[in-house]
Amino acid sequence: MKMLISYTLIRVHPAQDKEVYETVQTFGEVKDVIITYGEYDLIIKVGSESLGDLDNFVFNKLRTISGVASTTTLLEARPKDMVKG
Amino acid sequence: MKMLISYTLIRVHPAQDKEVYETVQTFGEVKDVIITYGEYDLIIKVGSESLGDLDNFVFNKLRTISGVASTTTLLEARPKDMVKG
Amino acid sequence: MKMLISYTLIRVHPAQDKEVYETVQTFGEVKDVIITYGEYDLIIKVGSESLGDLDNFVFNKLRTISGVASTTTLLEARPKDMVKG
Amino acid sequence: MKMLISYTLIRVHPAQDKEVYETVQTFGEVKDVIITYGEYDLIIKVGSESLGDLDNFVFNKLRTISGVASTTTLLEARPKDMVKG
Amino acid sequence: MKMLISYTLIRVHPAQDKEVYETVQTFGEVKDVIITYGEYDLIIKVGSESLGDLDNFVFNKLRTISGVASTTTLLEARPKDMVKG
Amino acid sequence: MKMLISYTLIRVHPAQDKEVYETVQTFGEVKDVIITYGEYDLIIKVGSESLGDLDNFVFNKLRTISGVASTTTLLEARPKDMVKG
Amino acid sequence: MKMLISYTLIRVHPAQDKEVYETVQTFGEVKDVIITYGEYDLIIKVGSESLGDLDNFVFNKLRTISGVASTTTLLEARPKDMVKG
Amino acid sequence: MKMLISYTLIRVHPAQDKEVYETVQTFGEVKDVIITYGEYDLIIKVGSESLGDLDNFVFNKLRTISGVASTTTLLEARPKDMVKG
Repeated sequence: MKMLISYTLIRVHPAQDKEVYETVQTFGEVKDVIITYGEYDLIIKVGSESLGDLDNFVFNKLRTISGVASTTTLLEARPKDMVKG
Repeated sequence: MKMLISYTLIRVHPAQDKEVYETVQTFGEVKDVIITYGEYDLIIKVGSESLGDLDNFVFNKLRTISGVASTTTLLEARPKDMVKG
Repeated sequence: MKMLISYTLIRVHPAQDKEVYETVQTFGEVKDVIITYGEYDLIIKVGSESLGDLDNFVFNKLRTISGVASTTTLLEARPKDMVKG
Repeated sequence: MKMLISYTLIRVHPAQDKEVYETVQTFGEVKDVIITYGEYDLIIKVGSESLGDLDNFVFNKLRTISGVASTTTLLEARPKDMVKG
Repeated sequence: MKMLISYTLIRVHPAQDKEVYETVQTFGEVKDVIITYGEYDLIIKVGSESLGDLDNFVFNKLRTISGVASTTTLLEARPKDMVKG
Repeated sequence: MKMLISYTLIRVHPAQDKEVYETVQTFGEVKDVIITYGEYDLIIKVGSESLGDLDNFVFNKLRTISGVASTTTLLEARPKDMVKG
Repeated sequence: MKMLISYTLIRVHPAQDKEVYETVQTFGEVKDVIITYGEYDLIIKVGSESLGDLDNFVFNKLRTISGVASTTTLLEARPKDMVKG
Repeated sequence: MKMLISYTLIRVHPAQDKEVYETVQTFGEVKDVIITYGEYDLIIKVGSESLGDLDNFVFNKLRTISGVASTTTLLEARPKDMVKG
C-alpha cells in the first residue's frame, strides 16, 4: 500500500536549532530533513501508514520536542485525473 | 464510519463574493459555510468519505470556481489520547 | 433570535495541545472544535448571544487559557442580498 | 447609542491606489483613511449603526471597488472589565 | 504643522491584554486605541511631532511594555496628487 | 560533489493546478513534487549543480510557467557542527 | 543632511521579473537592488531627501511599474540611545 | 571573487531591540543594518565568502543571540540574462 506523504514546515526557537534537528532524525516516520533559512527553519518529509499515524506523529512526537515553536503540516493530495495510482 | 472533516479558508476576488458563496452551497460535501471579513472571506466545513474524495472535492470542484483566489484546507486530526473514537 | 456565529483559529504552544483542547470543550459558547495541523492548531466554532458576549468569551475565557499562543476570530457576516434571514 | 467601530486594512492593486483612495472617501461610513506603505496600502476607520450595516458596507460597497485586491476587517471588541461603557 | 500619523498593529501575549490596553492609553502620543480579535489584538493611532519622536515612542515606550508580543507600525504616506496639503 | 538541495513552495492560480503540476515534472532539476492543500498548492524538491543553476531554474524556468502565482524557495543550509559532510 | 533610508520588499508577477528588475534600476532613489527567491522577489534600498519624496517614489514611481504585485516598505528608525547621530 | 550577498529580516523580542542591534553590528559579515518598525524589526545585509560561511553565520552566530525571535534570510539570486557578471 502507498504511504501517506506529508511535509512539515517547522519554526524553531533560535539557538535550539541543533537539538531539534537531531531529535527529528531519530523518528522512523521522518524520511528526509533539511535545515533552511527562509521563513521556516526545518523542512521534514514524513511517511505515515495512515492518517491516524500521522496525527500521532505530529501531536505526540513532533510537537513535544523542546525548541519547536510552530509546525505547519502539508499533506499530499492525489486528485483523480492529476495523479496516477 | 466517521466522516473526514476539514475546513477550507477561502480568499475570494473582491466583487465575486456572491457567486462563490452561492456555488459553494450547491456541493454536497459542504456541511456549513459562513461569509467573514477577517483575513479570509469564506469558511466552509467539508465532510468527505475518504482522503481521495477530499482531494477531488478541493481540486476538481472548489478550486475550479471562478472568483476563488486561494484556498487553505485544514484537515481534522484525531491523535490518540486526545480525541476519543 | 439568531445566534452570532464566529470561528476562532488558534495557535497553541507545542506540547500544550491537549490541555487547550480539553479546556476549550468545557465552554458553553464552543459549538464545535477540531484539532488540525495546518497553519493553525485548533479551530473552534463559537455561538454568542451578542457582540458583548463574544468579546467576553474571547478576552475573559479563551485568551486566559495557558498554552494559547495567539487567536484570530472571524465573525460571520450576513450581507443583505447574499444571506437570507 | 454607541457606533460600532472597525478598521479595514486594504491591499490595493498597484497603480490603482489613487482611484481606490478617492472612492473610499465618498462613503459616509468611512470616518478616517490613511495611505500607508507597510504590508497594507490603505487603512480606513469605519463607523456602522449595526453589524448588518457593517456587513453591507464591506460586501456591497467596499469590496465592489475596482482596484481593491483584498480586505481584512477588524471589529472593535469591548470586553467587560477592560472597556467602560 | 501637521502631525505625523501612524497606526501600530499590536499582537499581545494572551492573558496580558488588559495591562497592555491600559498602559497604552497613558501615552500622550496615542490618539485612539481599539481592542480587536482578528489577526491583531490592539490597533493604536499614534500622532508624533517628527520621525524621531515616532522612533522613540515605538522603541523606548511601546515595545518596552510587558505583554507586547510584536508590533507593526504603518506610517501615513502623503503622495503628491493623491493627498492635498 | 554534493548537489544543492532546495524546496520551492508554490501558490498556483486555482483551476490551473493540473497544467502547473504536469509542467513542473518535465524539468530535470525537479526531484520530487507533491500537490497539497494547505497554504501552498505544490511543493517541489529541486537539485542543482550550483547556485547559478538554481537561479536560472527558478527565474528562467519555474516562474515563467503560466498559472504560477508565487514561489518561495528555501535553500538547504549545512552549518558546521550540525550537518556532517 | 542624512538621507532617509528604507527598504522595499517587492512581490513581482512571475514571468515579469526581468522588466521590473530593469525598471527599478533606472530610478535615482534606488541605491541597491537584489533579486531573491524567498518570500519576496526583489529587495531595494531607497534613499530619499524627505518623507514626501519617499511617498512620491513609492506611489508615483514604484507602484506604477507593470508587473509589481505588491510592495512593503520598511523605513529606517533611529531611536535615541540606540542609533548615534 | 564576488561575495555572496543576502538580507536577513529579523523579528526581535520587544524590549531587547537594543542588545540585538548592538550585537549584530559586531559581526564582520554584517555589511549594513537598519532598525525598522514594519513587520520586521531589523534588516541586515550579510556578505559571505561561500554558502558554507553563510550557513555558519546564520546558525552559529545570528540565531544564538538572545532576543532574536525569528530570522528569514533572503539570498541574492543572479539569474543569467538578468544580472551581468
